[in-house]
Amino acid sequence: MPGTVGVMVLVSLPDQSWIDDLGPIDGVEMLVWDPREDPPDDDIEVMVAPYLDEGQAAAALAEKPSVRLLQLLTAGYDSVAGRVPEGVALANARGLHDTATAELALGLIIAAQRRIDDAVRHQATGEWADLTFAPGLADRQVTLVGYGSVGAAVVRRLLACEADVTAVASRARDGDDLVDQVHGIDELPDLLPGTEILVVVTPLTEHTRHLVDDETLAALPDDALVVNVGRGPVLDTDAALRHAGRLRFALDVTDPEPLPPEHPLWSAPGVLITPHVGGASQAFRPRALALLREQLTRLGRGEGPLHLV
Amino acid sequence: MPGTVGVMVLVSLPDQSWIDDLGPIDGVEMLVWDPREDPPDDDIEVMVAPYLDEGQAAAALAEKPSVRLLQLLTAGYDSVAGRVPEGVALANARGLHDTATAELALGLIIAAQRRIDDAVRHQATGEWADLTFAPGLADRQVTLVGYGSVGAAVVRRLLACEADVTAVASRARDGDDLVDQVHGIDELPDLLPGTEILVVVTPLTEHTRHLVDDETLAALPDDALVVNVGRGPVLDTDAALRHAGRLRFALDVTDPEPLPPEHPLWSAPGVLITPHVGGASQAFRPRALALLREQLTRLGRGEGPLHLV
Repeated sequence: MPGTVGVMVLVSLPDQSWIDDLGPIDGVEMLVWDPREDPPDDDIEVMVAPYLDEGQAAAALAEKPSVRLLQLLTAGYDSVAGRVPEGVALANARGLHDTATAELALGLIIAAQRRIDDAVRHQATGEWADLTFAPGLADRQVTLVGYGSVGAAVVRRLLACEADVTAVASRARDGDDLVDQVHGIDELPDLLPGTEILVVVTPLTEHTRHLVDDETLAALPDDALVVNVGRGPVLDTDAALRHAGRLRFALDVTDPEPLPPEHPLWSAPGVLITPHVGGASQAFRPRALALLREQLTRLGRGEGPLHLV
Repeated sequence: MPGTVGVMVLVSLPDQSWIDDLGPIDGVEMLVWDPREDPPDDDIEVMVAPYLDEGQAAAALAEKPSVRLLQLLTAGYDSVAGRVPEGVALANARGLHDTATAELALGLIIAAQRRIDDAVRHQATGEWADLTFAPGLADRQVTLVGYGSVGAAVVRRLLACEADVTAVASRARDGDDLVDQVHGIDELPDLLPGTEILVVVTPLTEHTRHLVDDETLAALPDDALVVNVGRGPVLDTDAALRHAGRLRFALDVTDPEPLPPEHPLWSAPGVLITPHVGGASQAFRPRALALLREQLTRLGRGEGPLHLV
C-alpha cells in the first residue's frame, strides 16, 4: 500500500494543472500521466483518473503494475467495473458531484415545470406566448429515488423551493434533518400514484437497471414529470417513449449515450434532454481539488485511503 | 369603511370559482363581478381585481361608487397607479407571488448558468453537444437588488444552491436569518465589479426606472448574468442590447411588454426570455385563497383591511 512513512508516494494526475492547483503535499510526489498517452517511466503507486475517461485509465493500469490505487473523480464506478486489474484498490469520489448534479436536477425540474423549454422555442420565433399558470415546483409531491449523497443535495434544494418530498432508498431507514423517514424501494409502487415529480438519482447496478420500466411509468398519474440525473439505463428508454406525451421527462442521462442524432427520444413530446452535464459544472474543480488534497495528504502521512469501493 | 359589526360586507370576486373555493366567511357576502362586464346591481363595497386585469378593474370602479376597497392579487400596483378613484382604498398582495417568482428566478438562473437553453436548441437538431463545465450557480457571487419579500424568497433558494449572496435594498440595514447585512443601493457601484450574477427584483417606481442602465452594465465583469424578474423598465432595454454578448441576460419581464415579434432582444446573443410568467404558477391560487380568506375574515369581523398601500 502507498504511503509508508518517510517514503514519498508517487501519484499521477491527468495534467499539469492539477499539480499546479494542488500545490505541494508532504510525502507526495506528483507527475503527469494522461492514460491516452504512454505512461511515464516511474513507479507510480496512485493514479488519479481523468474525469470521464475512467475506462481508459483502468485499461492503462495493465501496463503499470506499480499502481496500487486508482482514484476516480466520479461517484459512479460502473465505467470501470471489471476493468481494474487484480490487486489495485479503487477509490471513488462520493460527494464530489453532489452540488453540480443537484443543481442541474433542480434546474431541469423548474425548467420543465415552468415551461422554460417552451419559452426557448417560442423565443426563436419571437412569440410572446401565454405560459402562465404552469404547474411549478412548489407544493408538488416529489418522490426521489436514490437517497444517498447526491439525493440529499437534491432534497435540500427541493425543500427550499417548498416542494413536498418523499425519499426512497434501497432499504427503509429512519429520517434525518431533511426527511422524516426514508422509504424502502419495495414501497415505491404504493408511492407512484401520488407522485407528481419522480426524480431518479441512483447509480447503475444490477438492481437499478430498468428500475423505471413500463410498470413504474404506468403507475404515475397523467402529466407527471420523470427526471433522471443518475445513469441512463436506470430508465427503460422504450418504455419512456411509450409514455412520452402522457408523462413528461427531463433527462440528463440517456440509454444509449450519447443519444444518436436520429433517436426518437430527441423529438418525443414533453421530453427535455441535457447531454450528461449533471456533475460537470464549475463547481467540480474546487471540490475535486479539496477531495484530492485530503486523500493525498492521508497517503503522504502513511494513512490508508478514503472512499474505497 | 366596510365591515361594520353585524352588517354583511358585500365583496365581488372575478368569477364563481373564487367564491366556491373560498367557501363561506362570517359577515361576508360574495358575488361575481368581472370588470370587463357590466357591474351587477348591488352595493359592492370590496372589489377583488382579476389577476393581470387590474387596470380595467380600477377603471370600472368609476361606475360603482359604493366600492371602498380595491383588493389586488399582485404585489406590484404600478398597473393601477393614478387610476383608482378618490376615496377607494387599495390593498396589494404582498407575499402572494414570492414562491412562484423566486422559483422562476432560480430556474432562469440555473438554466442560463448550466446552458439548459442551449440544450433545448441542440435537442431540436438531435445534437449531443458538449455543454460540460458551464459556470453553474454554486460558488457564484450573486448580487440581489430589491431585498423585500420576493427578494428574500430568492435568496433562500440561492443559499440552498451554495451561492454567495449579497443583498441590496433602497437603504442599508441590519441583516436577518439569511444575510449578514443589507447594503444600500448607493453601495451598488462598488459591488458590481465583483458580481457574477445580478438579480433584479424591484418594483417599478420613479427611483427604479432604468436602475440598470448602461453605466451599471458596463461595471459588470465579462460573462456576468443579469436576471430581471421585477418589472421590465427597471432594465434599460437599449443598454441591454448594447451589452448582450459580453454579458448574458435572463429576463421574465421586458420593456416593452409584450415584446413585439420583430424586437431585436428576442435574438440578441446570450439572452433568455420568458413571457412574464414569474408570479403565475400553480403556486398562485392556494396562496391567493389564503390571503383573501384572511383579508375577508377581518372585514367580516369589522376589522380594518391588511396590506393597504
